This record gives sequence, structure tokens and C-alpha cells, in this order.
Amino acid sequence: MKSDIEIAQQAKMKRIMDVAKTIGLKEEEVELYGNYKAKVSLKVWERIKDNKDGKLILVTAINPTPAGEGKSTTTVGLGQGLQKIGKKTIIALREPSLGPCMGVKGGAAGGGYSQVVPMEDINLHFTGDLHAITTAHNLLAAMLDNHIHQGNELNIDPRRITFKRVMDLNERALRNIVIGLGGIGQGVPREDGFDITVASEVMAILCLSNDLMDLKERLGKIIVGYTYDKKPVTAKDLQAHGAMALLLKDAIKPNLVQTLENVPAFIHGGPFANIAHGCNSVSATKLALKLADYVVTEAGFGADLGAEKFFNIKCRYANLKPDAVVIVATVRALKMHGGLKKDELTTENLDALAKGFSNLEKHIENVKKFGVPLVVAINKFPSDTDTETDYILRRCEEMGVLVSLSEVWAKGGEGGIDLAQKVVNILETQRSNFRVLYDEKLSIKEKITIIAKEVYGAKGVNFEKKAETSIKQLEKLNLDKMPICMAKTQYSLSDDPNLLGRPENFEITVREVKVSAGAGFIVALTGEIMTMPGLPKVPAATKMDIDENGVITGLF
Amino acid sequence: MKSDIEIAQQAKMKRIMDVAKTIGLKEEEVELYGNYKAKVSLKVWERIKDNKDGKLILVTAINPTPAGEGKSTTTVGLGQGLQKIGKKTIIALREPSLGPCMGVKGGAAGGGYSQVVPMEDINLHFTGDLHAITTAHNLLAAMLDNHIHQGNELNIDPRRITFKRVMDLNERALRNIVIGLGGIGQGVPREDGFDITVASEVMAILCLSNDLMDLKERLGKIIVGYTYDKKPVTAKDLQAHGAMALLLKDAIKPNLVQTLENVPAFIHGGPFANIAHGCNSVSATKLALKLADYVVTEAGFGADLGAEKFFNIKCRYANLKPDAVVIVATVRALKMHGGLKKDELTTENLDALAKGFSNLEKHIENVKKFGVPLVVAINKFPSDTDTETDYILRRCEEMGVLVSLSEVWAKGGEGGIDLAQKVVNILETQRSNFRVLYDEKLSIKEKITIIAKEVYGAKGVNFEKKAETSIKQLEKLNLDKMPICMAKTQYSLSDDPNLLGRPENFEITVREVKVSAGAGFIVALTGEIMTMPGLPKVPAATKMDIDENGVITGLF
Repeated sequence: MKSDIEIAQQAKMKRIMDVAKTIGLKEEEVELYGNYKAKVSLKVWERIKDNKDGKLILVTAINPTPAGEGKSTTTVGLGQGLQKIGKKTIIALREPSLGPCMGVKGGAAGGGYSQVVPMEDINLHFTGDLHAITTAHNLLAAMLDNHIHQGNELNIDPRRITFKRVMDLNERALRNIVIGLGGIGQGVPREDGFDITVASEVMAILCLSNDLMDLKERLGKIIVGYTYDKKPVTAKDLQAHGAMALLLKDAIKPNLVQTLENVPAFIHGGPFANIAHGCNSVSATKLALKLADYVVTEAGFGADLGAEKFFNIKCRYANLKPDAVVIVATVRALKMHGGLKKDELTTENLDALAKGFSNLEKHIENVKKFGVPLVVAINKFPSDTDTETDYILRRCEEMGVLVSLSEVWAKGGEGGIDLAQKVVNILETQRSNFRVLYDEKLSIKEKITIIAKEVYGAKGVNFEKKAETSIKQLEKLNLDKMPICMAKTQYSLSDDPNLLGRPENFEITVREVKVSAGAGFIVALTGEIMTMPGLPKVPAATKMDIDENGVITGLF
Repeated sequence: MKSDIEIAQQAKMKRIMDVAKTIGLKEEEVELYGNYKAKVSLKVWERIKDNKDGKLILVTAINPTPAGEGKSTTTVGLGQGLQKIGKKTIIALREPSLGPCMGVKGGAAGGGYSQVVPMEDINLHFTGDLHAITTAHNLLAAMLDNHIHQGNELNIDPRRITFKRVMDLNERALRNIVIGLGGIGQGVPREDGFDITVASEVMAILCLSNDLMDLKERLGKIIVGYTYDKKPVTAKDLQAHGAMALLLKDAIKPNLVQTLENVPAFIHGGPFANIAHGCNSVSATKLALKLADYVVTEAGFGADLGAEKFFNIKCRYANLKPDAVVIVATVRALKMHGGLKKDELTTENLDALAKGFSNLEKHIENVKKFGVPLVVAINKFPSDTDTETDYILRRCEEMGVLVSLSEVWAKGGEGGIDLAQKVVNILETQRSNFRVLYDEKLSIKEKITIIAKEVYGAKGVNFEKKAETSIKQLEKLNLDKMPICMAKTQYSLSDDPNLLGRPENFEITVREVKVSAGAGFIVALTGEIMTMPGLPKVPAATKMDIDENGVITGLF
């Protein structure tokens, strides 16, 4: 069996300028980065802004398990399937981060015969967006510490700084550090730390901004810390937002690549799906909707985090109306939700499947609450038995939901034709009555409680003392009228990663509440959320190599 | 008077593919980064390697003063002058670093009517080379700390780690830090720090490597620290060099841009000129020599550091034979070397000029020691009087050296025609007898002493105890047979920045000796060398902005 990178290396890519032309872009609107990557000028917007929007299809999933679901693979495969049946399609995905790539994951751009290419470039520096974000973020951090060192005119309390530094690597040793050591000329000592770049508020801002001026204004609103008398200090107070916007002038332009079957794909922006909203950029999605009849996009983690935030944050801010949802599941993952261990998955087990189906069932119910028609995609594995897949088909049928057995990993677009047809079917027969789940003008506690009860199925919400204090402070500062970004474990509908399937009778505990004033959301933290991963004992990087002919190994 | 960025924004750039074609590059050998930047595939080498080499002209300068010399401006202007008189020319420069750009300098790509463009892009992320270097460097650092955290099989002593982290920003507060805090799961606590990216050994390696495999091998030789029993630990021991080379696969390809007058310019690599060798990449210089009849390049700081290392390190490793040298000076700077303050420079002062001329005189003598013919370029300022310029002309004439009054800042190539003609004149009439100044097989002390006496004019060299110990250790490890990279103040021929002009009767004190085993040189540190700059009270970044039409201000 060929590895992902072997398949990717054998791809018959079209020149990206030719791909761009298939979606009506003009040569002067496309900025090449080599022959197979491009950025699309935001100036194109003026020309196409009155085009009719295409259909927006969100691919989401059950709660992830170690068995793997294949959400990105299904997104790419569905796009290829839609093209196979003659639909003008664009895919919109997040860009991968280097940290996990060098750590555990190797590459991340779909898999098998449903990948985006050039896989190596997308997984390495791509068009430099993450580096630009890292730099803009760290420039603000440098200007902050420099301000304090140079006299601290703004009266910033070094103990109340909330803005850390970032790096696009898995850097355990930089999570908790002390900076400014070495004496009088070397800055002011204080506690600090590094997050991974995708956790940067700058990333979330880039992904939620409509244009460069919106971006600059949001950057200016980033709160970096508080003064000794507890007033917020912003990037604008430090006069950093202009230079930051300048550093991001190209990063804000959507990147265009293609799938193995030459379907155009915008890969742009990739914020964390816990402390941020976990979707690709608004600019890419909006552009795609003007240029294609069908736009397939995805959101991070399972539907309880990814789809919820896609709807309540991204669609709210960008005024998007999703037309259909695909929920991805696998027989294997559902059996894990039913209590099996990873090495027990290859044998048929209807009891575990039935028990685990409850996880999918809850996500189906949730999507319906948002008023969007849906299809379930079962990402087929060789070990799945007909009895198992039939069971899922029957259960979904009882819920009035279409199911497709997808083979996009093994067969590419061919394996996604059935899914594509079912998606087109619901788009043509069912009307989306999309609605957000809460009014952002409600109180912070009310908003969190609605998400916890409606989406997670919790009995209620506990607010710890720290959270209570923060909520009061945000209310006082008039920073409470924004949507909520839940930071919760992705493995469970609850805030306990061990509660698989469809937990009941649980409460959500909110430990802390923070504001991302530039991005425009309030982050509610439940449990410990990791914002800087570590490398494993044997990092994926140790197996990566490139030879004298430029052939790459170890990205898989 | 127009600012640099205003002039740059009015440039009539050619499409970079057209520029590439003027030097015989084929379309498939050029990778576009937008319409005005490109990388050149290293595969081109096979096709052109038997071409006759063009003439290699190094532009260097007297010891820098706050009055400014205009070395990059002269380099660009000379290239434009050569083109004006019909010579096929390529310019080879270093890429600027973002840190100083955001700090004090604003942009750095020549000045006035002798600039490389697109100035904004070159000064910001350009083609991502510095970001790739930052990432490759920090990946190695992350793998090092992870190794220690995961059991430390290699027995690395955390107190003997020599490899710091890097960031392409001016980050005073990160010079001295403590990492790995926070308890058992958060790494192993130890002292650490950040250097600026251009000070990374990875940058020096990229610039000295002949190809990707040479690069990988050199990366593998980087010494990150020592074991408890004092044995060196390398990047190869950590299995990091393959992934690092992979991360640098595009960064190693020379970047092609153009000057305001459409002269092709390779801008590639930019190592520090103190702890590293301060020249653009070997790959860019070699490629340029095969593609043009005249290649104009520069080296960092004054000739005592820049030219010396260009000759003794870069030319030695790359087997280059420089054909001519241009030494840049200004009347103003020479008067500062003669003892005047910056606000006393606008009035004629022949005494100060005569005294300060001694600095230029010493650099002229030095270049002659390397056997390379030279021309002096006086970069004209409006305040210069005829009496002053006549004085310089006469003194140079007495030394048998041609002088040109260059007006490339105000007039572009037109202002550089005289300089170009004089350079062509010496190329056609004088033969270069280039030789390096010492045999790398000499002892470390012998090599340092030769540089100090011959180039700086010192009486002798003091080795402090720390240096003595390091030298013995390097001899024991058989790491002493490499060229020397002097880390010395750029402001004086001596190691005391206050001794201007031509100091005499001084000794050089070597405080410490370090090895850059991957780059292939031994760094001798005299005095305190800053490897991470800080931001000034009002950083240049506070004045940078971009408006809704993409118009940039504050890069000057």
C-alpha cells in the first residue's frame, strides 16, 4: 500500500494558474508562489461581489477517537466526488501547523487518494502565512516588553500581562519561562511562556477579518495585559497594530492549491479549535462562495466544538448561511465510543456499535437544532462488516437522515460519488433554516449555559471562583457582549475526556474566562487546555529526510 | 526630497520572469513568488556550470560611523552604472533582517535612486528564507530539550548547552531566560536565551553550502552542547539534520529581484558580520558568476571584518577569486574618524579629514595584502567641499589608487558611470593575485594573531583564560583546523569602539573562542558582542502602517 506522500508525489498537478482560470480568476488576480501554489488578491472581491453565492457545505464529525475519523479526507473526497458528477466545486480547508507535523502527525492534508497537493509544501512553510502570524504576534510581545523596559509610560503591570509569545513548533520547554534576566540592560524580569502559533489571537483575527482594514482594527483591540489600576492595555495603545497589519498584508490573501484530482482548494488560516474557533478564514470561504456553485469546508475537532463554533462564531460574524452539513463517522470510532479498546476494533461488535452510535445520534440532533439539513458519511475501513454498516444505515434512517458509505481514501472522487449525490439531493430537496443558537447580547453565563445544555447535553454549568471574577471584570469593562468560544476536551461531549458515547447527567465546569477582544469572542476554559504541545519520545522529524534529487521521505 | 519608499513605490519594475530571461535563465528554472520576486532552481547549475565565470567585484567600506557610508547603495549604484555602460551585470546582496527593520532602521535595500525592489517585500518576509532558518534552528533546539526531557539517552549536560534559540526580531527581554519551568511534565529547567536569526549558525551554514547535500551534512555537524563527560553532541546525534534540511529546501535557492533600473539582483542569505562571516550565500555568488560578466557583491561592516572574512572564509570555502575591490568612504565619515562629532560635519575641516583619512589608508593597504586591485568610491554628500574631495583624490593618487566621486544615491546608475568605468579600467589593466592571508592548518592562536597584526595593525593578541581553555579543548577535539571568524566591534580597527581613525600600539584581547563546526569556522570573541539587539524607546514599527489601498508608510 502506498503512503500518503508517495501518492501525493505521483499526482498529476495542473499549473495553478490553469486551476485558477477554471474558477474564473484572471491572471492579474493570482500571485504565484511557484507553479503549484498561489495567493488570490483581495481586489478580486470588487469584481465578483455581486455574484450569486454557491452552496456552503460543512464537514464535521463525531467526537474524535484514536481510531481516526478522516474528516479532512472526507472533505477533499466530497469535493472530488462533486466534481466527478459535474458540479463546480471549491474546497476550503485550514492550513496545517508545523509543530504537530514535526511531532506526531507527519503531514496533514487529507489522506490516501483524497489529498490536497503539493502536500510537502502545504505541510512545510506553504506560503508563509503562519510565519507571518508568528512574527506579527511576537512583534507585539517585543514592543510590550520594550515599553515596560523604556519607562512604562502606560503603567503596565508586568504581573498582569496576558499576551504570551508564540512559535510554530511543539515546544514543551517554552511553556513556562522567565524572561528579562541578566540585569539592568536586559529588560524587566517576569513570568512568560510560548503558545503554538495556531493558538495566537492573531491567527483567530486573521481568520475572522473581512479585509485588511478590519484586520488592522481587530489587531488594535488585542488586550495584552492590564495596568496597575486594572485597565486593559491594547496593541493600539502600544502603536503596534499598523506594523502588525503590514506584516500580515499577504497572509490575509487566500491560498489556492488543488486536490489530487485538480479540484481547486483554498487552504487558508488554521486557528486552534479549543481556545479559538477552528475554521479556515472568512476571506477564503466568502471568495469560494462567489467563485463556485458548491463550497465544501470543515471545522476542527468534533461537531460539539467545531460545528458549534463554525455556526455561532464564524457564520455569525461573516453572515454566512450554511446549506448542508456532513457528519463523518467510522464504524471503528463508534465502537470505541461504545467502550472498545483500539486493539479490539477489527472484530465485529454490534453491542459496542449500538452503544457508540449514541455519540453520532447526539451530533445529528445538534445539527438539526441549527436548522441545517445533513448527511452522515461513514468513512469505510476494510475491517467494517456489512452487518455493522447496515446497523448504522438503519439507525440513521429511523432518524430521517441519509447515510453514505464513503470510500474516498481508497478511491478518491470515485469513492465519493454516492456522498456527493446525497449531498446534492438534500441541497435540492431540503431548505436550510440556519439560525445561531443564542443572542450574543445575553450574559456570559447565559450563553455558556445554552451551549452546555443544548449542544453538550449537560445538566448545568459550574463556574469556579476564578471564572466568576473574570466574568464580573469583563462585564464591568463592557467586554461581555460577544459570542462564546468554548475550550473543552475534544474527546467527549462533556468536559471529561473519559466519558465517551453520549454522556448524561453531567455538569460542565468553567474554570476560567478570558477575552479575545480582537478576535471578538470570550473564551470559556473547562479543564486544562494545552496551548503548546510537546514532542513525543521519537519525534516524526527524526525520520524526515530529503535526498540529492529533492525526494522527501518521512512526511506521511 | 522623496523618501526611499516613495522612490521605490514609483519604480517601473519589469516582470521578474523577463528579468530572469535577460540573464539567460529558462522559464522552468525560475519559481515565481508573485510577479516581482523569484527563486532560481539549483538545477540550473548543471546546465551552466561550464560557463566562463564573470568578474567578481567586492564592495566594502571604511569602519562605519554614525555619519553613514552607503555601502549597499554604492553596490546597487555600481551595478546600475555598469549596466549603463553596457556591461552584463548581476548584483549579489544579503537579505535584510526584520528585527532591525522594526527597530531603528526601517528598510534596508540600498537608498535613494540606487535601491533593490520590491523594497517592501524584501524588507518584510521576502521569500521566507529567514523564517525557514528560524524554524530549522528552533526545531533543533526543541528536539534537544525534548531529548533531555524524554530520558536523556545521550547524557547531555543541560549546563553545557551552547545552542540557543532564535527569533527574527529585536528581543532584549529574551536574551537571558530560564526555560522548562512548571513541574515534571513541562521539560527540564535550564538557562537559555534567544539570538536574532541572522546570528544563527544555520544562517552561516546556508550561506556557505554549495548544495543541499552539503547543507545537510553541515547541519548535522552543528554542536549543540556537551555531555557530562564533555563530548560534543551534534544535530546528527539528535537525528535532526534531515528534517532541518527539508525545512531549508527552498531557502537554499537564490532569490532574484531587480534594482530600480532593472539590473538583476540576487538577494540571498544574511549572516551577522561579527559572530558569522557577513556575506550573501555562496550559491547566489556562484550562480551570478556563471550568468553575468560582472558580479557586484558586498560584505558586512568595514573591510577589517567584512572583506577579511569574505576573503579568508567565503572565498576560501567556495574557491572564489575576487577580481576587484571597491572601498566606500564619505567625506563626512572620514571627518568623524578624524575626531569630529556628528553635528560638526557640515563645515569644511581639512585637518579632521587628513586625520581621518588614515582609516581609509589602512583599509587600502589591507586590500593590497590580499592581492586584489581596488578603487575608492567617495559617496558624495551636498555638504562636501571641492577642497575636501580634492584632498582625498590627491592622497589616493599618492597611494596609486583610483578614486571615483559617486552620486548613485541622488542620480542612480547615471551617478555611478564614472565609478563603473574606473572599475572596468582596473579589471582590464590590473590582474588580481588573490591569496588568503593564512593557512587554516595553523594553530588557532597563530591564525588570530595574523589577522590582528596584518589587518587590524595590532601589536599583538592577549588571550584571556576562558579563551585559552576553549582553544585547548578545540585542539583536543581536533576542531581547530578551520578558518577564524573574528567577532569584534565594527567601529574601530581595534577592539575598542572609541579608537577611530588608524589606532596604533594596541593589543587585541580575545575573551572567548567558540566553534561553529557546521559552518566551518572558529569564532574568536573580543569584547561584548551583541547577538540579540533591543528595540529603541520609539521603535520604527510604531510609525509603520498600511492603508485600504495597500499603500505602505514608515518603511524608509
